Amino acid sequence: MGTKASVNRSWHLKSRPVGALKDSDFELRDSPLPPIGKGQLLIRTVYLSLDPTHRLWTREKASYMPSVKLGDVMRGFIMGVVEQSNNEAFPQGCVVTAILGWSLYNVSDGGVADGSMISKVEMDPRLPLIARFGLFEHIGLTSYFGVIDILRPRPRETLVVSGAAGAVGSLAVQIGKIYAGCRVVGVAGTDDKCRWLTGELGADAAVNYRKGPLAESLRKACPDGIDTFFDNVGGECLEAVLDQINMNARIAMCGAISQYGNDEKPYGPPNIYNLLMKRARIEGFIVLDYAADKRWWAKAHDDITNWHLQGRLKYRIDVVKGIENAAKAVTKLFEGTNTGKLVVQLSEEPARN
Amino acid sequence: MGTKASVNRSWHLKSRPVGALKDSDFELRDSPLPPIGKGQLLIRTVYLSLDPTHRLWTREKASYMPSVKLGDVMRGFIMGVVEQSNNEAFPQGCVVTAILGWSLYNVSDGGVADGSMISKVEMDPRLPLIARFGLFEHIGLTSYFGVIDILRPRPRETLVVSGAAGAVGSLAVQIGKIYAGCRVVGVAGTDDKCRWLTGELGADAAVNYRKGPLAESLRKACPDGIDTFFDNVGGECLEAVLDQINMNARIAMCGAISQYGNDEKPYGPPNIYNLLMKRARIEGFIVLDYAADKRWWAKAHDDITNWHLQGRLKYRIDVVKGIENAAKAVTKLFEGTNTGKLVVQLSEEPARN
Repeated sequence: MGTKASVNRSWHLKSRPVGALKDSDFELRDSPLPPIGKGQLLIRTVYLSLDPTHRLWTREKASYMPSVKLGDVMRGFIMGVVEQSNNEAFPQGCVVTAILGWSLYNVSDGGVADGSMISKVEMDPRLPLIARFGLFEHIGLTSYFGVIDILRPRPRETLVVSGAAGAVGSLAVQIGKIYAGCRVVGVAGTDDKCRWLTGELGADAAVNYRKGPLAESLRKACPDGIDTFFDNVGGECLEAVLDQINMNARIAMCGAISQYGNDEKPYGPPNIYNLLMKRARIEGFIVLDYAADKRWWAKAHDDITNWHLQGRLKYRIDVVKGIENAAKAVTKLFEGTNTGKLVVQLSEEPARN
Repeated sequence: MGTKASVNRSWHLKSRPVGALKDSDFELRDSPLPPIGKGQLLIRTVYLSLDPTHRLWTREKASYMPSVKLGDVMRGFIMGVVEQSNNEAFPQGCVVTAILGWSLYNVSDGGVADGSMISKVEMDPRLPLIARFGLFEHIGLTSYFGVIDILRPRPRETLVVSGAAGAVGSLAVQIGKIYAGCRVVGVAGTDDKCRWLTGELGADAAVNYRKGPLAESLRKACPDGIDTFFDNVGGECLEAVLDQINMNARIAMCGAISQYGNDEKPYGPPNIYNLLMKRARIEGFIVLDYAADKRWWAKAHDDITNWHLQGRLKYRIDVVKGIENAAKAVTKLFEGTNTGKLVVQLSEEPARN
């Protein structure tokens, strides 16, 4: 029956955040471990992914998903091991990813009605388990489909990526080079991050948005204008780019972390009408929508695996240990102090065959 | 040699407009009629089309076209008769449309280098000449490609059109019905216009944006949300729609007349990030780009002609007589006091064979 604990521990949403997420918005509570019913399984969480999108899930108004209710266990992308199972599709011992709770243990019905989108982790054995969150899932697949399907970049075009040193952004930078040989320009918040982008990830230029007016820095870094923009930031960054787009430019709206704290009145770029002048478009997308296209989804996994094994697609993981540190760690995303994909390790990885 | 005058008369741009276009921004001047050189032709203007886009052309900053320079003859879409010709492609007597000056007479090089996009008017003889501006050119073709290529509506979807009683909007309303059988909701500025939309043009509902909060009126008129939006207005109208879009909504940015007066700081909708939540897009387009696809362009003309002759696609023309009234007339577009396509008649129509 595997490891069996009798007590669960979870982070609950205590208050609606004002501005950025704060650790005081969450509360750690213990509860009895529930028995599993027919068709259900018990998952021991190994890794919890911390993401900017948590800010959207905690606001009052629904986002692309329903809001987490006050008092409920906070929702997150988790990776874990099935400890008990009444579900043949997910036998005991198998490793899964799912959208479930910030908890040591979660119960799932196998994705029938719980909205968990649970799936078995099948991955090239040369990759470590954590690569699942570094390169795939809601991270690498977001970068992949955002660049390839929404932006559709062409050789010699200029691709700008905001939040370029973040988990999704850093992969978008590299995929822009690998897939289309674009001129890629990353926007990030420290010189160290900029050096990582140009020195290790192959960006042609990087812009520190905290140093001098962004519009001017972008203009220098993009002498031929901007054809495609992978936007994780929104607000003034989006505005600066909109002023410099070329004819038929494409903007993929992946996130808007600069505005996630402004629930009352986010900043809408006043130059949005430049879309008309340049016959350009902005398109929002959510990676979860692509999962339904199983062949394209599989192709994305193959491409990413191969690119990584060829040494062309790199990732960084920032691991925080212990469930008790999750609420504190999530604030790093809004301060920009994480380096690479932020995850919390809640328990030991299983042995792999 | 046809009619020959010795004096030309033209509207020149006198000042950069502040807010809406005013007649005092223009100045009427006489000048000698120039002789035509090799490959050139002289066109007597019959109709001058007055359009919201003039506001964009008169601002300091380039739009989708270069700005008209201060002191230069104002640019417009004209229809006229070739009076003299040194160009075989446009013989004397033929009727043409072109982007040229607000003048009694224009000289063109046949579109080689003058950017006039001049073309011969070939039209079903059952249609009056003025239908060229009522149903085709930068009006009907804009409605056609905006709906069919940018919005791609499907049956049972809800299409909202802003500026719905305007020249482009009123055709977009009807094409949404004809092409896709959508639920079509028009937004206009008077009850009379709203009655025209529902009573004569077949809109399922019409909303007077001057009566009560637009968001509430839209919610009543669009009980199933908004799937596609043909936007001529921008600003708060765009914001109200963005709040009510459905998954995978498409917004065609055709114009933004509410913001054309705000050169300094247009109003950017703060809820633009709803594009992300709804995996939706906003796309700007300019009809002139479609002219290069000759087969699609011809198909559009055939479709529009047939729909009109079948009585399914109606238009209204608001004719003002005399070049001296052009500058005063253009202000009607910004007051919303024109009904249908606003044109100035500068001289008599030629006899048609």
